[in-house]
Amino acid sequence: MAFTEIEYGVTDRIATVTLKRPERLNAFTFTMRGELIEAFDLADADDDVRAVVVTGAGRAFCAGADLGGGGGTFGHRQEGETVDGAPRDGGGTVALRIARSFKPVIGAVNGPAVGVGVTMTLPMDVRLASESARFGFVFARRGIVTEAASSWFLPRIVGIAQAMEWAATGRVFPASEALEGRLVSRVYPQEELLPAAYALAREIADNTSGVSVAAVRRLLWSGLSASSPWEAHAADSRLMSELGGAPDAREGVTAFLEKRQADFPMKVSQDLPPGVPSWPDDPYGV
Amino acid sequence: MAFTEIEYGVTDRIATVTLKRPERLNAFTFTMRGELIEAFDLADADDDVRAVVVTGAGRAFCAGADLGGGGGTFGHRQEGETVDGAPRDGGGTVALRIARSFKPVIGAVNGPAVGVGVTMTLPMDVRLASESARFGFVFARRGIVTEAASSWFLPRIVGIAQAMEWAATGRVFPASEALEGRLVSRVYPQEELLPAAYALAREIADNTSGVSVAAVRRLLWSGLSASSPWEAHAADSRLMSELGGAPDAREGVTAFLEKRQADFPMKVSQDLPPGVPSWPDDPYGV
Amino acid sequence: MAFTEIEYGVTDRIATVTLKRPERLNAFTFTMRGELIEAFDLADADDDVRAVVVTGAGRAFCAGADLGGGGGTFGHRQEGETVDGAPRDGGGTVALRIARSFKPVIGAVNGPAVGVGVTMTLPMDVRLASESARFGFVFARRGIVTEAASSWFLPRIVGIAQAMEWAATGRVFPASEALEGRLVSRVYPQEELLPAAYALAREIADNTSGVSVAAVRRLLWSGLSASSPWEAHAADSRLMSELGGAPDAREGVTAFLEKRQADFPMKVSQDLPPGVPSWPDDPYGV
Repeated sequence: MAFTEIEYGVTDRIATVTLKRPERLNAFTFTMRGELIEAFDLADADDDVRAVVVTGAGRAFCAGADLGGGGGTFGHRQEGETVDGAPRDGGGTVALRIARSFKPVIGAVNGPAVGVGVTMTLPMDVRLASESARFGFVFARRGIVTEAASSWFLPRIVGIAQAMEWAATGRVFPASEALEGRLVSRVYPQEELLPAAYALAREIADNTSGVSVAAVRRLLWSGLSASSPWEAHAADSRLMSELGGAPDAREGVTAFLEKRQADFPMKVSQDLPPGVPSWPDDPYGV
Repeated sequence: MAFTEIEYGVTDRIATVTLKRPERLNAFTFTMRGELIEAFDLADADDDVRAVVVTGAGRAFCAGADLGGGGGTFGHRQEGETVDGAPRDGGGTVALRIARSFKPVIGAVNGPAVGVGVTMTLPMDVRLASESARFGFVFARRGIVTEAASSWFLPRIVGIAQAMEWAATGRVFPASEALEGRLVSRVYPQEELLPAAYALAREIADNTSGVSVAAVRRLLWSGLSASSPWEAHAADSRLMSELGGAPDAREGVTAFLEKRQADFPMKVSQDLPPGVPSWPDDPYGV
Repeated sequence: MAFTEIEYGVTDRIATVTLKRPERLNAFTFTMRGELIEAFDLADADDDVRAVVVTGAGRAFCAGADLGGGGGTFGHRQEGETVDGAPRDGGGTVALRIARSFKPVIGAVNGPAVGVGVTMTLPMDVRLASESARFGFVFARRGIVTEAASSWFLPRIVGIAQAMEWAATGRVFPASEALEGRLVSRVYPQEELLPAAYALAREIADNTSGVSVAAVRRLLWSGLSASSPWEAHAADSRLMSELGGAPDAREGVTAFLEKRQADFPMKVSQDLPPGVPSWPDDPYGV
């Protein structure tokens, strides 16, 4: 885990991913891109991780793409940013990796989150913010476009009217506007942000089956793409059949009836049933 | 109508479906499943029914699946719960039947609505709650998954962030949190809940064409699955053509111009035009 | 621009479309339909237009279809309202034309917006309202159905529960209810409505690349129809590749680094890259 631009650690069954270039307001680079993907690979492979918290070191969450390349920044392509000749945007590969996570992901936005700094949070399950957070879908002010698959995520999260207002103006806005527009679920004083994020992660880790949560995460997110409730019914019926008689269901119901904390025996690394929905085949291997 | 676990009645053009196992907090059984489907069949076949109100007897709405089977509850399959070898979850068959209803459905959540007790309300058009209602998508706490096609309904109703927070924690939450998260439209003191539900049903029954409402219900819900506004335009253009010259439209416009209550002559049982959208073919016949 | 039922003008890079039949509360006619489509054609063709504001003359926004035809109003078909024998609803052709706009569209709802008067606003990006605005999806009270592709737009904008409550009751409701239900983004005293609409248009015109905004508008709206985040990633990766090295991106980043206002050189009429998403082929040529 020789990360240079992020930090990754696991405490008490909760992984923390910290964007760590505080001298550059954690601006996004190609290196950070790779390290983020690797961090989510680690979290998924580790049965001791039940949830992931993502935050930024210092006073920013992530100021967006590092513009050290000047006017040519977005004209450069790094090796690995094309597959079979088709371009692949770097922010998008991070977003899609987060979308595929089997562990729920909580964004703890501790300061400015601009450009890819905010679009990378959209595939996270819940976004919490501190009062000093600021947000900006500034792409149209830079002559580029909303990336990182945000055209799929953003209008589904905040509605198309709010998405268009933020994306067409490129406005940088405070946490209060993000809360009102439902981009973030709750806003906290700075010192209460991380405790709130960990309390939510704890609520998941202490009470639920990791296999259930992994399956539910895939069900709900891919349910946004399901063609009808009938398709969703087929998917959840299969999972209810696969999991209903499995050890976690026996323990979960028994513990409930005995009014005690459940101790779920199944492991995400080994016991995910075949009915867990896949996202469409990804030509990029993300 | 020899129902044993629900009650069904029609008064003043509004049907009421009451979950009725108050000694078990109206816990869901395979029998209740069949009776609910039959009740919605009755409501659709009866032109005297213009809207359906669903509520619970006693202090609960529905406490979820009856766990009388203990740890093996979700491992059992009832006869009829597979079709051609494929599993079909019981809660889902109720949810899909409600989704197909030609009459608008109002959930009046009078107390705890947990597990299938809440997922069965998602295909209802409007959910109203009393101050004593509580909700829980507790599946991951029992080692199973969000069912009843809720992976299609829930993120479309409350947004994916709220859906994931509730589903990943399995938290039981009060009516105020349901209101804030837009799971319910309004919260009332207990004694005002049913009057509010009936007032809303009355507003529909007294002012609108039943054929229009049936067509609109299918248009809007299936519109959530439409591939583009162009597909929706084709569907509504066809219906405008089929209904624009029909008796209800003549009466509706004439009554408006004459500033009187309309008396719509058409009947849902006989006069639905062929352009009313169908849901995809259902292999389960639901 | 010999318009008779609307007014069209451009000031300071903002186009204004005014529905102008104040003696009929700007009721919608077949003539108005054609003029609205032509106005959006003008706005798209004019590189001097960066945003479009739509409002109504006099005390109404648009009272809906002109019912001067009496009970037979919706039974008539105008020439041009079928293509290859298939009906095409007039309101829908306006809605789809607005959906295809390359310029962002702001609805300034200054009074009653009923029937097609409100459904035509749904493909606009942002709806602002005055305190005297009223709204009504009254179709079921007239014996017809929600039109203008509103079955695609409405549940995506306000959620299916709110959409069904308004469409099934046909209720006419005040601006406050529209705000609470998220149909409009903000409500203003009458005299502040147009200034607010122009301020928002100004924020877009003064700060962003027109090519970026056109591409973003297509990305986000068609993103609502994208089958998955992977599809969206392919679309935005292509645009990032096409625009990242183009003149507007060079200017946008350079201006930001130099802390000055950007002066974007590219033109929507000439410089839209091939990766800008298309809507599905439209059999009606809309």
